[in-house]
Amino acid sequence: MSRLSSRARLMPASPIRRLVPLADQAKARGTQVHHLNIGQPDVETPRPLIEAYHQFNDKVLAYGPSSGLLPLREAVAGYYERIGQPVPSKNIHVTTGGSEALVFAIGAVADPGDELVVFEPFYANYAGFGRLLDVNLKAVVTRAEDGFRLPADEVIERAIGPKTRGIIICSPGNPTGTVYTREELDRLARIVKKHDLVLISDEVYREFTYEGVATSALALGIDDRVIVCDSISKRFSACGARVGFVLTRNDALSDVFLRFGFARLCPATVDQLAALAAYQLPASFFEPVVKEYRARRDALVDGLNAIPGVHTYRPEGAFYTVASFPVKDADHFCQWLLNEFSTDGRTVMMAPANGFYATPGEGQKETRIAYVLNVPALNESVQILAKALLVYPGREA
Amino acid sequence: MSRLSSRARLMPASPIRRLVPLADQAKARGTQVHHLNIGQPDVETPRPLIEAYHQFNDKVLAYGPSSGLLPLREAVAGYYERIGQPVPSKNIHVTTGGSEALVFAIGAVADPGDELVVFEPFYANYAGFGRLLDVNLKAVVTRAEDGFRLPADEVIERAIGPKTRGIIICSPGNPTGTVYTREELDRLARIVKKHDLVLISDEVYREFTYEGVATSALALGIDDRVIVCDSISKRFSACGARVGFVLTRNDALSDVFLRFGFARLCPATVDQLAALAAYQLPASFFEPVVKEYRARRDALVDGLNAIPGVHTYRPEGAFYTVASFPVKDADHFCQWLLNEFSTDGRTVMMAPANGFYATPGEGQKETRIAYVLNVPALNESVQILAKALLVYPGREA
Repeated sequence: MSRLSSRARLMPASPIRRLVPLADQAKARGTQVHHLNIGQPDVETPRPLIEAYHQFNDKVLAYGPSSGLLPLREAVAGYYERIGQPVPSKNIHVTTGGSEALVFAIGAVADPGDELVVFEPFYANYAGFGRLLDVNLKAVVTRAEDGFRLPADEVIERAIGPKTRGIIICSPGNPTGTVYTREELDRLARIVKKHDLVLISDEVYREFTYEGVATSALALGIDDRVIVCDSISKRFSACGARVGFVLTRNDALSDVFLRFGFARLCPATVDQLAALAAYQLPASFFEPVVKEYRARRDALVDGLNAIPGVHTYRPEGAFYTVASFPVKDADHFCQWLLNEFSTDGRTVMMAPANGFYATPGEGQKETRIAYVLNVPALNESVQILAKALLVYPGREA
Repeated sequence: MSRLSSRARLMPASPIRRLVPLADQAKARGTQVHHLNIGQPDVETPRPLIEAYHQFNDKVLAYGPSSGLLPLREAVAGYYERIGQPVPSKNIHVTTGGSEALVFAIGAVADPGDELVVFEPFYANYAGFGRLLDVNLKAVVTRAEDGFRLPADEVIERAIGPKTRGIIICSPGNPTGTVYTREELDRLARIVKKHDLVLISDEVYREFTYEGVATSALALGIDDRVIVCDSISKRFSACGARVGFVLTRNDALSDVFLRFGFARLCPATVDQLAALAAYQLPASFFEPVVKEYRARRDALVDGLNAIPGVHTYRPEGAFYTVASFPVKDADHFCQWLLNEFSTDGRTVMMAPANGFYATPGEGQKETRIAYVLNVPALNESVQILAKALLVYPGREA
């Protein structure tokens, strides 16, 4: 049986998880691996969320409503009200993580062969969801040198063709950490209106900003053209709950999400109760979290830039940075770190950045580094990288 | 903004859930509604499964592996070993319910514009997943009069064209309750081989058989061409956990499921621990469950057939039957039952069967009835239907 579908053959392996077997082998050899490859925060999951699992005591673990439990949808509506961007609860649909929110958003606006504009480097799974739905991503390159700012309007508009149905953004950004300014977002809003597009805004890192506040796409005055994808994974350090949201002020799009939701019946019940507990936490919950991540960012960025030949910028948000290394092939460097290197029994796992680009050849000297470990572990990771570069055979001058 | 994608415009509303707002309105008026519309068992969820939620105490609710927690995959492999159809754990991928298993299976074999053969009436969400992935379902009609048996080979083969990539079956069947015989399945296997297809076998009702045992597609000797979709929802009365499985002995297909899984990161962590507890239950757990459903089936079928003009057959498995009513339009009848009828403050909700057919005009006098209520409630439901038909204005002779 050789007839796999094209989408099956072309579905990329995850750049974040592709090297996991190598890490497992390193661990089997007794090497300790610092995981900088995946955005899995080490911040403790808030206790009320865990306790919600303990409190579940229904006799029958039953299907819930397709768009999610009403108290959760109302709690999320309250959250959007508090951040100054009210969205009615009927337009907020609970999804299985931000992942399903993205599938619903892309599927609602694009048919097979249609295109969505993305700014590369971009969250690698956009390519996966595009592949699954046969939607093509048209990548507009942004550069580490200027902190991955949006390019000029004409550069963006050059990527828009007759098959373009929307633009996907992520701000604060994964993998870049870049937070788009109000001016950048207003420019995008004008382009979206001018070309009759939809703006799909992935805002799962909204609270993770270290220099001011992130502007939501809901603030841009193009309500009919905005879909927001959200998630509790990062905000509440609850990646394993797989609870996300897709929301819009456009009722026609909201009706699509309802019908997409019908097909897969409902999101998981108990995880939604945990999410509800999370949305009842005081907003002050975020303050120490953000303070901690700011300290981590600074430790990582300062440490990386002190290694000869390594360069990174200081991202304004999320918990990633893209760093360039003095190597021919960062993908090989990442594999070598797991396969052949250790110092004092330790090594580092990073995600090769080429998987975050659609343009062949881009990102070849770059990795994405998630600063989801504490400052001592980050400092140690930087030391490991510095030592590795002294002996790595693929090093460039 | 009017440019929804075609798949968004054409995504059907669920025939199972479409009338929920009418049921809600009836309840708001004080009417008690017997829910025969949805396959939500009332059987108590086994206590060890609920307790698994209580025992979760990790500091961080973290992402798990993309294909699921290894102990769960191994437990499911043990289950397949016990039913005489071993599948290695590496070829068993945990999904978010049987729903995601179906999306992965369809996506692995079919591209936009490709076709899959289904036997109608079929589980309505196959049409939803097909729509999402732009895969067309080619329906071969089967008939209540002969218990929805598979038609002759030539009838099936007539539906196979150059774009056909596979056949989807569900046995024990939703909505039919039909359990295909070994002879029927062997015929299908020959057709699948002859036309170079894949057999996608939805076996989530495997244990729910009342006249013998269901044959798994894994037994047919076409290992490279079989994908099985499975779920804990019905087996362990845990629909709200959203834990399913997609499995195959074909390593190339298994690798596709791994990559599809990467894109959405992982299934929910705690729900998988609950599923693990379920797979540690003794097999004897099913005996009283099956006995109870057999009694329900008999009460429902005997009751329905005693109503003048109502006809149904005696399904061999699952917990549904398709019944035909002496009405012009069963969809209207179902709505009328919720909107305008009650007796002693009670009414009945059924799923109109037209949503389970792809051929326009088929199933117009039929409903799907789930026997997921206890025998007294089923008997009362039958009485309500009998009284309703005495006064329903759309009744035919």
